[in-house]
Amino acid sequence: MEPWRTAITDAGAEHIRIRGYDITELMQHASFADTLYLIHRSRLPSPGERRLIDAILIASSDHGPGAPSALAARVAASGNRRAPEAAIAAGILAIGDYHGGAGEQCMVLLAEGIQWAEREGRTLIEAAERIVDRALERRERLPGLGHRTHQEDPRATLLFALATEHSVAGKGVELIQAIQREASRRIRPLPINVDGALAAVLFDLGFEPIAARFFFIVGRVAGLTAQVYEELHRERPMRIHVPVEYDGPEARALRSEDAR
Amino acid sequence: MEPWRTAITDAGAEHIRIRGYDITELMQHASFADTLYLIHRSRLPSPGERRLIDAILIASSDHGPGAPSALAARVAASGNRRAPEAAIAAGILAIGDYHGGAGEQCMVLLAEGIQWAEREGRTLIEAAERIVDRALERRERLPGLGHRTHQEDPRATLLFALATEHSVAGKGVELIQAIQREASRRIRPLPINVDGALAAVLFDLGFEPIAARFFFIVGRVAGLTAQVYEELHRERPMRIHVPVEYDGPEARALRSEDAR
Amino acid sequence: MEPWRTAITDAGAEHIRIRGYDITELMQHASFADTLYLIHRSRLPSPGERRLIDAILIASSDHGPGAPSALAARVAASGNRRAPEAAIAAGILAIGDYHGGAGEQCMVLLAEGIQWAEREGRTLIEAAERIVDRALERRERLPGLGHRTHQEDPRATLLFALATEHSVAGKGVELIQAIQREASRRIRPLPINVDGALAAVLFDLGFEPIAARFFFIVGRVAGLTAQVYEELHRERPMRIHVPVEYDGPEARALRSEDAR
Amino acid sequence: MEPWRTAITDAGAEHIRIRGYDITELMQHASFADTLYLIHRSRLPSPGERRLIDAILIASSDHGPGAPSALAARVAASGNRRAPEAAIAAGILAIGDYHGGAGEQCMVLLAEGIQWAEREGRTLIEAAERIVDRALERRERLPGLGHRTHQEDPRATLLFALATEHSVAGKGVELIQAIQREASRRIRPLPINVDGALAAVLFDLGFEPIAARFFFIVGRVAGLTAQVYEELHRERPMRIHVPVEYDGPEARALRSEDAR
Repeated sequence: MEPWRTAITDAGAEHIRIRGYDITELMQHASFADTLYLIHRSRLPSPGERRLIDAILIASSDHGPGAPSALAARVAASGNRRAPEAAIAAGILAIGDYHGGAGEQCMVLLAEGIQWAEREGRTLIEAAERIVDRALERRERLPGLGHRTHQEDPRATLLFALATEHSVAGKGVELIQAIQREASRRIRPLPINVDGALAAVLFDLGFEPIAARFFFIVGRVAGLTAQVYEELHRERPMRIHVPVEYDGPEARALRSEDAR
Repeated sequence: MEPWRTAITDAGAEHIRIRGYDITELMQHASFADTLYLIHRSRLPSPGERRLIDAILIASSDHGPGAPSALAARVAASGNRRAPEAAIAAGILAIGDYHGGAGEQCMVLLAEGIQWAEREGRTLIEAAERIVDRALERRERLPGLGHRTHQEDPRATLLFALATEHSVAGKGVELIQAIQREASRRIRPLPINVDGALAAVLFDLGFEPIAARFFFIVGRVAGLTAQVYEELHRERPMRIHVPVEYDGPEARALRSEDAR
Repeated sequence: MEPWRTAITDAGAEHIRIRGYDITELMQHASFADTLYLIHRSRLPSPGERRLIDAILIASSDHGPGAPSALAARVAASGNRRAPEAAIAAGILAIGDYHGGAGEQCMVLLAEGIQWAEREGRTLIEAAERIVDRALERRERLPGLGHRTHQEDPRATLLFALATEHSVAGKGVELIQAIQREASRRIRPLPINVDGALAAVLFDLGFEPIAARFFFIVGRVAGLTAQVYEELHRERPMRIHVPVEYDGPEARALRSEDAR
Repeated sequence: MEPWRTAITDAGAEHIRIRGYDITELMQHASFADTLYLIHRSRLPSPGERRLIDAILIASSDHGPGAPSALAARVAASGNRRAPEAAIAAGILAIGDYHGGAGEQCMVLLAEGIQWAEREGRTLIEAAERIVDRALERRERLPGLGHRTHQEDPRATLLFALATEHSVAGKGVELIQAIQREASRRIRPLPINVDGALAAVLFDLGFEPIAARFFFIVGRVAGLTAQVYEELHRERPMRIHVPVEYDGPEARALRSEDAR
């Protein structure tokens, strides 16, 4: 078997280095957000970048037991109390296109819009109009806008404020805000949700679209550990019941020839 | 890297053989239950063994959307519609000590009880008394008895009838039924549930305890595929809401020194 | 909370019915393949349909420890020996677009090709030419063709023979075979792999594309249980080592200001 | 359905509060390590506690592609390139009793040893002797000691130094070090590994045993995101091959009566 090449971690008999930095130096001087940034970008973040990474992770960390990730983790823990890693993994598996995944789609949209504007010599406002036009035409929802719970998502508002304060806000933030105004004018009042805000900020920090999903997962794992702990310690096993109503075929007899 | 040794499947450039049998011969003449039996026991089952394997898989195949495995799969599918394998895996992760896992514990109990009776020259009724004594003493529940839904589990009753009909029933079935009578006399009427019945039958078929979990999972995957399909086709994304009541610390301000 | 509606299983206090059939009747008279068919199609299969379902499940059941699903399951079992359900779930999570997922893509391709031919009044050979043209143009691989191990996949050949024998073969089989001839003429000899064969057969059985992924998963779970069992019983924990060569940034010192 | 009670997060239409703190205040002033601590302990950490949490997360964050969690994630990504959440979950599922799980077992051992010493009026050195005696007698390995790669684990050494520097080190650290000396004297030189060190420190920080598993998972998820990213961007799909040698039953013919 050929050796596997990796540029992330060098783990030898007497040292562990992450992107060249000794892990013990990181343990002494760096934060987890620094390390997450380093592990992806191969350099440590500036103070402003660090604040935004922390803010994104905290914004993603928990949203109560009703979010699909927390709910899937709790349901798994309810039947499987000896394997908390299984419950956490079940929670992560609920993170997809409709829960925590819109950030990735939104980053793709922002990248395409900005490239189009640059290529065609248009403004980001024109790019936003084009994006909303196309969504209306194709009857697609706009990733990063709208929320089933919040009128205005306080996490999104704060992420933009931090991005401005730390001079991180750039074309990503500008474009998502233009899309939001255009969509609210032409469709209905649609707030930017946390997925949209973290997408814009991660774009302006220079990350690729998949980072939106990665950072959401890393942040949410913190909440999942607490949700699983609470389920295990406050609730009985198998306590979760959903009311079910059967509306399928009526009772029928199996004639022996049916199954031969 | 040393070659990995395996005694299960030989996959070469021009053949695939499972435990020595050409996969194309199995595809022509065997059933899935035969193959599952073969892959674990290295021989094909007799007609009676095949019927019991099929019956165990069917008994495990589905129990509606409220079972933790189905519920976890549906919740995951609700947030993550593009990755049905993720929803199925989330369902499997809910199968553990309290859901589908009692069979394994029950097989351990049966094996210990039968060994004790043989070693000490006692009857299986005495073994059952000892098992119930110990459960009462340690205040532990008896795996394989009791069900949150069913008074008498029809799947258990039928499994025992089939095991008798096909001359598979042996000490495992005898002991679980003795335990059930003893527990119902001394604790409260406790039916044998499907976990207990499949444990006894798998024990009498010569399987190890872990087989109870394996066979439950294999059977239930059939149901999970249908539950995920129904969720994706009949329901909107993110449709699952649970009512939540917060009872934690009251709103409090973060003094800047708290987080420095 | 509104009751959840389901048309699959009706589980009451005294009965369990799958698509209207009492589960105990199925346990007595049906096979697992029957039940899987029933649970998806709401009727029991004919003998020919049953044979094809069994053949598809057996064809998918195992391909040795080197398949990504088996390998992921074994690696998980190597670190996590107490939770076999976790190892099985890890195996299922490796089943995606490149492993076991081509069947779904192939069914989409077949459906589009057949619709196009019907709409435009063309033959399936013309549809196959158009499909190969487009794949060459877009430099995309054709799902269902080619295999990293097999020159000719014996499972595919046999599935087609069974589909013909049982009069199941229809336009799906015809089109995949036309695509195979066309691609082999214009690209290079490309066998139909098991994903392509099961896609064509499931299409001709009337299933939707997602069924290819579902049936592959259901079949493969049988193999995963045996792979996990073998790993747990024949191998030491943590025995899996891959040779690693680090090619990232050189060792560098963390200046205290980097992480402040 | 009864409302679900939770004391973790209060997510209303206009606010999200974690343990009473507004999430936007946390996003401005707290770090991810603070939030993880808060979400479990219902208060923010002191500067020393924060350093230790960061150090534990960083110590757990990555150990190269050969660790079972990274390897399972990469294998899953190799077959399933469209669902990075599935690959990350597969990685987490490899975290169990032999990989990242020893910390939990070690915390149980430390808690029992310290309780025994207090109850019996013995020293922690006597508790260590008793623990090593019992492990030798039962031929069990001591969780938290020994490593397949490292002679001395630099992460463990540094965690102890930080725990001393920040006055966190207490009976947990004292006891694991006494066990290490005793085991090295009577068995063979056995270093404290990262699981043992984080167990001792988490114990002295007041956490329950399950926290060792939770914190290892949270830290390792950072590395898993990078391992999955590297697999997707530097490697071809399905590139992972392990050499396999079949040693099972020889090729044999299926007589038609075998499978009837």
